[in-house]
Amino acid sequence: MAQTAKRDAVLSEFPVGGPQDLFYSRKNTKDLPTIVRGEGIYLWNDAGDRFIDVSSGAIVSNIGQGNERVLRAMYEQGKKLSFSYVRVSRHEPNAELSRKVAVLAGPGFERCHFTSGGSEANEMAIKFCRQYAFAKGMHKKTRVISCMPSYHGGTLGTIAVTGDLDFAPIYGDMVQFSEKIPTPFTYRRPDGMGVVQYALQCAQALEDAILRLGPENTLCFIFEPIGGLSTGANVPPPEYFAEIRRICSEYGVFLIFDEVMCGAGRTGRFLANSHWPEAKPDLVVLAKGLASGYTPLGAVLAPAALVDELAGLTGFNLAHTYNANPITCAGACAVLDETVENDIIGNASRVGGYLLERLLALKESSPIIGDVRGKGMLTAVEMVKNKETREMLPPELMAADRVRQIGMKHGLLIYARRTSGGRFGEWFMTAPPLTMTVAQVDEMMERLELTLAEFTDELHRAGAL
Amino acid sequence: MAQTAKRDAVLSEFPVGGPQDLFYSRKNTKDLPTIVRGEGIYLWNDAGDRFIDVSSGAIVSNIGQGNERVLRAMYEQGKKLSFSYVRVSRHEPNAELSRKVAVLAGPGFERCHFTSGGSEANEMAIKFCRQYAFAKGMHKKTRVISCMPSYHGGTLGTIAVTGDLDFAPIYGDMVQFSEKIPTPFTYRRPDGMGVVQYALQCAQALEDAILRLGPENTLCFIFEPIGGLSTGANVPPPEYFAEIRRICSEYGVFLIFDEVMCGAGRTGRFLANSHWPEAKPDLVVLAKGLASGYTPLGAVLAPAALVDELAGLTGFNLAHTYNANPITCAGACAVLDETVENDIIGNASRVGGYLLERLLALKESSPIIGDVRGKGMLTAVEMVKNKETREMLPPELMAADRVRQIGMKHGLLIYARRTSGGRFGEWFMTAPPLTMTVAQVDEMMERLELTLAEFTDELHRAGAL
Repeated sequence: MAQTAKRDAVLSEFPVGGPQDLFYSRKNTKDLPTIVRGEGIYLWNDAGDRFIDVSSGAIVSNIGQGNERVLRAMYEQGKKLSFSYVRVSRHEPNAELSRKVAVLAGPGFERCHFTSGGSEANEMAIKFCRQYAFAKGMHKKTRVISCMPSYHGGTLGTIAVTGDLDFAPIYGDMVQFSEKIPTPFTYRRPDGMGVVQYALQCAQALEDAILRLGPENTLCFIFEPIGGLSTGANVPPPEYFAEIRRICSEYGVFLIFDEVMCGAGRTGRFLANSHWPEAKPDLVVLAKGLASGYTPLGAVLAPAALVDELAGLTGFNLAHTYNANPITCAGACAVLDETVENDIIGNASRVGGYLLERLLALKESSPIIGDVRGKGMLTAVEMVKNKETREMLPPELMAADRVRQIGMKHGLLIYARRTSGGRFGEWFMTAPPLTMTVAQVDEMMERLELTLAEFTDELHRAGAL
Repeated sequence: MAQTAKRDAVLSEFPVGGPQDLFYSRKNTKDLPTIVRGEGIYLWNDAGDRFIDVSSGAIVSNIGQGNERVLRAMYEQGKKLSFSYVRVSRHEPNAELSRKVAVLAGPGFERCHFTSGGSEANEMAIKFCRQYAFAKGMHKKTRVISCMPSYHGGTLGTIAVTGDLDFAPIYGDMVQFSEKIPTPFTYRRPDGMGVVQYALQCAQALEDAILRLGPENTLCFIFEPIGGLSTGANVPPPEYFAEIRRICSEYGVFLIFDEVMCGAGRTGRFLANSHWPEAKPDLVVLAKGLASGYTPLGAVLAPAALVDELAGLTGFNLAHTYNANPITCAGACAVLDETVENDIIGNASRVGGYLLERLLALKESSPIIGDVRGKGMLTAVEMVKNKETREMLPPELMAADRVRQIGMKHGLLIYARRTSGGRFGEWFMTAPPLTMTVAQVDEMMERLELTLAEFTDELHRAGAL
């Protein structure tokens, strides 16, 4: 009865049309604000309340809102040439964007294949590996290895490699799920085991998985070098990177780095993998920040030798209609120009370092912050019931979502998706636009302190601490 | 040696970066023009040659190139609010676009879920059905039925349902392929069998497939009501539509219409399925023309009752970062306003009718046109070796691609992807922007006549006719 009344209310508010969240579970869409304006790192709702964009939308808005140069570039390109399909023609904005990305990425990433988002790009990376293997006569190489937990996208092909315990019962019979190995968590690791020791154990799991599947059947290992929401900005130690590179090379398995979250400058380098030059991946996937929210874009970066070899055999002949479309490419070129000319990546490194310091200080004084981690402007806060024992907060409290709700009262807009229903821990991302200043970090931290204090009080009152 | 020399030439032309087609097979990218300018239905290459956009890019550019209103709307929206993520906020352009689409679509399609393209949208439609079935306790419903040939996209999930004989060996072990039933071809049907008789036989194959899989395991049937490149604008008879609707309803199987090619006004109606009101599908998928090449967009249209019921249970909780982003939604709103205010859909019907007449007349005089078909501005020309026997041209001639190459000499840009390597026939699409005038059809037909005459001569000289 109450259910029916609630449904009728939704239907009468939006009998026809309505926002995307009408598709989502009602309990995930409580109190969603209607955002009407954005400027730099700030957003305003329809009541005039101002919010700090703590999570850059969904770790997207690297250069902030309302950039005139980017919008102007898209407009001008559209006036000149709005659309031209990559299967029947070439166009300059495509070649220009590839060149800019490849130059920033450096040797080993001379070729770029563009898509309209991260899921599509991760799919293209896996399918590129598969077509290469097939063209070279390695017909049995179809199996993919990835981590539990992890996030690689929402298409069926990327759901298959995403490490989320909730996906298997729903989609398990529709795709070939990847072989899962443990994420090298630095915080939530077995008692009595050091960070490096555990990471090496996780790397060993990769070798074990390849031997279990058979190297002749194993196509690739796809991995987020610095985690996003799925691991709360987990940063494995250098020893892990060196080891997975060694293992993939030894068994002829492609190493794909999913840098949808951490790439395009967010960690203080254009590519996150350049923090570990000893572990250069075969392919890198970018999206999100690459076009900074202005237009849907993803990219697969690959070495020229590999792409040219395949083009001389069968070629990699998949394309989506909007791949590398002129307006998108022109917009992304302008995003990169802004990024380089204003040293936005350097800012992410410097101001991100300050942000991490402030978060570490907050951890000391807060009874519920168990860990703070990340690199550059990709940082996360993990909340616990007990800081000594690292005991988790009960999942049914939905801590991350409560922080999102309380944060709104204090002028913060936080994105708080949970992987596997919180079974690997509860965290939220502090990943603002890379243009943030030190003063803006101070403003954000002040509001975050109030938010966490209020949530801590709530936990105390509920007897949950 | 020649291979190496060619590769070195490509590498020296594009040592870093380069256009998307560097990924494709070299033999598919011969003579690709570099397009530098577009205006309405025309495109110009870097040598100043003008082309008619015969295939609207890839059946995308419904309203033509360089539309000031659309570009201005995207620019203005970006200045106001560039990005806001649909999981943490609502925004007006999203609600506005949903409302416009739902109003044009009519009763039964009150809710719209937006993506960044057709593959993503077809995937979302299938996953929506799956999540609904799962939420209602029908855990075994995972199997999908689709046609051979057909095209539904390039993600692994849509490759699984696409009917293309070349995909199975490459991707067969990575996904659960759909159960394939024959496409109800109106031209290439068994000898001695009428159009309706064969279509009903194909509909019977749907019922047989459901019974073979078991209705309790069968999730949905996904179908292009009017084909795109995969079938060469095949239009099944009304009897087929009535029958597949009856069968899907009888066995509780979702009926999804993939209108990525034929929707958004191309056939002279906003939704192609409205040509057959007796066969209303449960879900409709749009993309391509919906944003007319200006910004990546796809959509799943669904009845409010179904969406609201699922939202009250688990919800349909998948999202890609760029889903329903503000700039894209604002651009698509302007595309729809242009479409409605200038009666572009009416024009597609009227001028498309004239185009079909001209093509039918050309068929009479041409020794190699076996069939001409389509609706509105979605038409195709099927080429044969023998018009009496309908004998196909040998696939190794790659007739459609030769027409593309010769067409360029005569100022035509034709998109000619082949499904299953031409094993179901050879055709090319005549699907120009919906804004085309009668005079422009005359201009296009004149050039097409020259193109086909030249190709026919070539076939004669080669002894292929």
